[in-house]
Amino acid sequence: MKTAENLDFLFHPQTIAIAGVSEKVKQFNAGLKYLEGLMQFGFKGKVYPMNPTGGEIMGMTIYKSVKDIPDKVDFIISAIPAPYTPQLVADAAQKGVRAIHFFTSGFSEIENVEGKRLQADIMARAKAGGIRVIGPNCLGLYCPGGGLSFNADFEKVSGPVAMISQSGGNAAHCVQEGNSRGVFFSKVISMGNGADLNESDYLEYLAHDEETKIITAYIEGIRQGPRFFKALKTAAKTKPTIILKVGTSASGAEAAISHTTALAGSDHVWDGVLKQAGAIRAGSIEEMMDITLAFQHMQVPTGNKIVIIGIGGGASVLLADEFTHAGLVLPRLSDKLRQSLIELFSSEAGRIFKNPIDLNNFESPKNFFKTMKTLDQSEEADLLVIHVAFDHFGLISIQEKELMIGVYLQLISQIKKEMNKPLAVILHSFSSTEMRKLALDAAKDLAAAGIAVFPSIQRAALALSKFAGYHKKHKAAVPAT
Amino acid sequence: MKTAENLDFLFHPQTIAIAGVSEKVKQFNAGLKYLEGLMQFGFKGKVYPMNPTGGEIMGMTIYKSVKDIPDKVDFIISAIPAPYTPQLVADAAQKGVRAIHFFTSGFSEIENVEGKRLQADIMARAKAGGIRVIGPNCLGLYCPGGGLSFNADFEKVSGPVAMISQSGGNAAHCVQEGNSRGVFFSKVISMGNGADLNESDYLEYLAHDEETKIITAYIEGIRQGPRFFKALKTAAKTKPTIILKVGTSASGAEAAISHTTALAGSDHVWDGVLKQAGAIRAGSIEEMMDITLAFQHMQVPTGNKIVIIGIGGGASVLLADEFTHAGLVLPRLSDKLRQSLIELFSSEAGRIFKNPIDLNNFESPKNFFKTMKTLDQSEEADLLVIHVAFDHFGLISIQEKELMIGVYLQLISQIKKEMNKPLAVILHSFSSTEMRKLALDAAKDLAAAGIAVFPSIQRAALALSKFAGYHKKHKAAVPAT
Repeated sequence: MKTAENLDFLFHPQTIAIAGVSEKVKQFNAGLKYLEGLMQFGFKGKVYPMNPTGGEIMGMTIYKSVKDIPDKVDFIISAIPAPYTPQLVADAAQKGVRAIHFFTSGFSEIENVEGKRLQADIMARAKAGGIRVIGPNCLGLYCPGGGLSFNADFEKVSGPVAMISQSGGNAAHCVQEGNSRGVFFSKVISMGNGADLNESDYLEYLAHDEETKIITAYIEGIRQGPRFFKALKTAAKTKPTIILKVGTSASGAEAAISHTTALAGSDHVWDGVLKQAGAIRAGSIEEMMDITLAFQHMQVPTGNKIVIIGIGGGASVLLADEFTHAGLVLPRLSDKLRQSLIELFSSEAGRIFKNPIDLNNFESPKNFFKTMKTLDQSEEADLLVIHVAFDHFGLISIQEKELMIGVYLQLISQIKKEMNKPLAVILHSFSSTEMRKLALDAAKDLAAAGIAVFPSIQRAALALSKFAGYHKKHKAAVPAT
Repeated sequence: MKTAENLDFLFHPQTIAIAGVSEKVKQFNAGLKYLEGLMQFGFKGKVYPMNPTGGEIMGMTIYKSVKDIPDKVDFIISAIPAPYTPQLVADAAQKGVRAIHFFTSGFSEIENVEGKRLQADIMARAKAGGIRVIGPNCLGLYCPGGGLSFNADFEKVSGPVAMISQSGGNAAHCVQEGNSRGVFFSKVISMGNGADLNESDYLEYLAHDEETKIITAYIEGIRQGPRFFKALKTAAKTKPTIILKVGTSASGAEAAISHTTALAGSDHVWDGVLKQAGAIRAGSIEEMMDITLAFQHMQVPTGNKIVIIGIGGGASVLLADEFTHAGLVLPRLSDKLRQSLIELFSSEAGRIFKNPIDLNNFESPKNFFKTMKTLDQSEEADLLVIHVAFDHFGLISIQEKELMIGVYLQLISQIKKEMNKPLAVILHSFSSTEMRKLALDAAKDLAAAGIAVFPSIQRAALALSKFAGYHKKHKAAVPAT
């Protein structure tokens, strides 16, 4: 059996040629997008535009063929129509190119004999020429460390999270959601049809990639079941590996075939496979990012007892329900601990000191701080969750809410610094337009302070359940010393 | 058996006295909040502040007792500490007050003998004096038609939706979420402990209230099972009645007792009761508002065949999965219809013309419009869903996305005017900060145009499933003519 291939060369090319860059741009030109994107993102190597009609763009010569480029070429991005790709591959093989990423679509994913024939043709030529292929029909690579990105707006900072995606759109979503919530990436691969390098190749590589500590994958279907399962087991043994497997409905499976030729496979089988491999199954794009966020920002909890603190009796009931249904444990605080909290405040009227703890209207920042310190030092909590319900404050005006919530949010950043236990924050109930904007800004500030912020009770419950469950299982797997 | 009581008088008082308005405000004063709130909201009647120390506020005399007010008093809002409430009720009875709303907490909801004694005391006095009680321990009433609101920032426009809520915070959330999404209210009742008027009273009333066409309720527990069930059947027969029953977990049930003394009851029983009554069960606050929105803005569909149109192959797979799992039917388009759509575009590469329909990068607004018109006229769709995935567009910059999505959104408003079938719009994948703000503004504009907008695939799937299911059931219940 061969060992995992080192794909580092894909992520660190020195020279990139882009096929399909138009000199005269009337409408959307993907080749030009890649060219501009790489330059704006700050790719350090050389970039050569190509087009059979030649010409000039941004002061650069447009080469008619890769063979004309007066330099070695490591990597080609192809944004030309599918019928021209066989010639491109033939030329690339002569030139000694190591990899081609095909943004180009119109291959096996469409219901069309010619598309399938073309894909077989380019794959045969690539193989003969020793060229590895990314795609076709995909956005390609994002790797801040290598200066690669398919979008200039993506974050330039590297992080511990890798993503394999059979959808470019979903990859783009995850990068941007991640970036805005404090999740940063080592490598993101939009892999499209996976005609050569497929999900198994990438997973094997990432399992051993030192830049990657957390692996995520959006999977419509896989090509080599046993190989993928083995790679998954290896990966999940040392890194939290979070899989979103879609195409679980009949329509979804059909959409997956039309999208990237992926055969979805039985949902039931997938459940078993992921569980056996020790991977974490996410139910949606949002959930995948939420779980990833927890792993990136929260310390390992010593157990699974969660205590929730915030304002709102109704919110407390909703929190208790959602967290319990998600499989989390909310122990009722002991009478002793409860009494010590009651003593901090003037009365219990309007408050609840059980779990969730309802602090009513947060009239005392000092007491909130003391409450958090007390809980952080207590053995009754392994993990703390603060929730802020922006539009739950019935009587007060928007201006007053902004003021009050502002004080609260500032305190959370301070508390985080003094706490030892893992902390999650839920910013929810931002339902009016003003509070939505306040919540957005607050989430950004808290994310910058390294805090895991979730935008709803449900989303926090699902993510924390899988986060806590993973650590519980891993602890059980390690014999006590 | 008595018939439903007409509670119109609660929502249309001429004079309101507010107990607990401080002249010298050092910290949060709820009485003052109510006073300012009513005046700013535009209550047309007279408002009298009260406080045992007397004084003056905003040019108004503060009366020491309701008995001193030189006018009849219809309604009292009490924001005084619980121990003073028996005297207030005694005075109110003498004065001939018809109803008291107790914002005041510290009654049966806390684990305290004195609280329970006080609640029994005020209830006995109110009953003897012929006074109806709202609460205690609640925010009270919002009724734009009567000029009543517990928050001056709420919308002054009336609408068809009523809400009964055992949580003031959740009521406040729903009003603000509703207002910002185009849902408007006839009456919202934050009912707290429901010591006198309870969920059954309000439901019986709303079932017959002509201002109310859609009923929603947040329920932690009920006091009179058979009566509530009967009221629910009556209500659901003529009005979509959407119930969020919480306290379904052990911790949730305990939180509910601490919150409003409500006994949660078995979740299983509730499922059966709601189904038998023909009510719609919501799983969360968000879902309750989403379903309400569908009923407020979407016409009755002729069947349950849904066709989804948007951009993104990965998004299509997610949509197909989520909608199918939610119980919706996404028929594959016929070859004839599919062919007629393919002919509108230059090629099928990168697009999918099945269901969901993936229009790739929306390069032709004209063709999008034609596609929608074709689907609107086709018998293969009963209900149309357009989705816009803000951060799915991999290659283009933020500025280009704003431009492209802007054109798209404008088209949707135009399309809505020319369409006959019910339409829902999903604005999702707004994951970067810029796109989140764009999505917020877009949602507001579309809501103003009377369009039902959902903020995620999951939320749309759940809401539309219950919306379509309700109409399917109702159609089945009406014999064909």
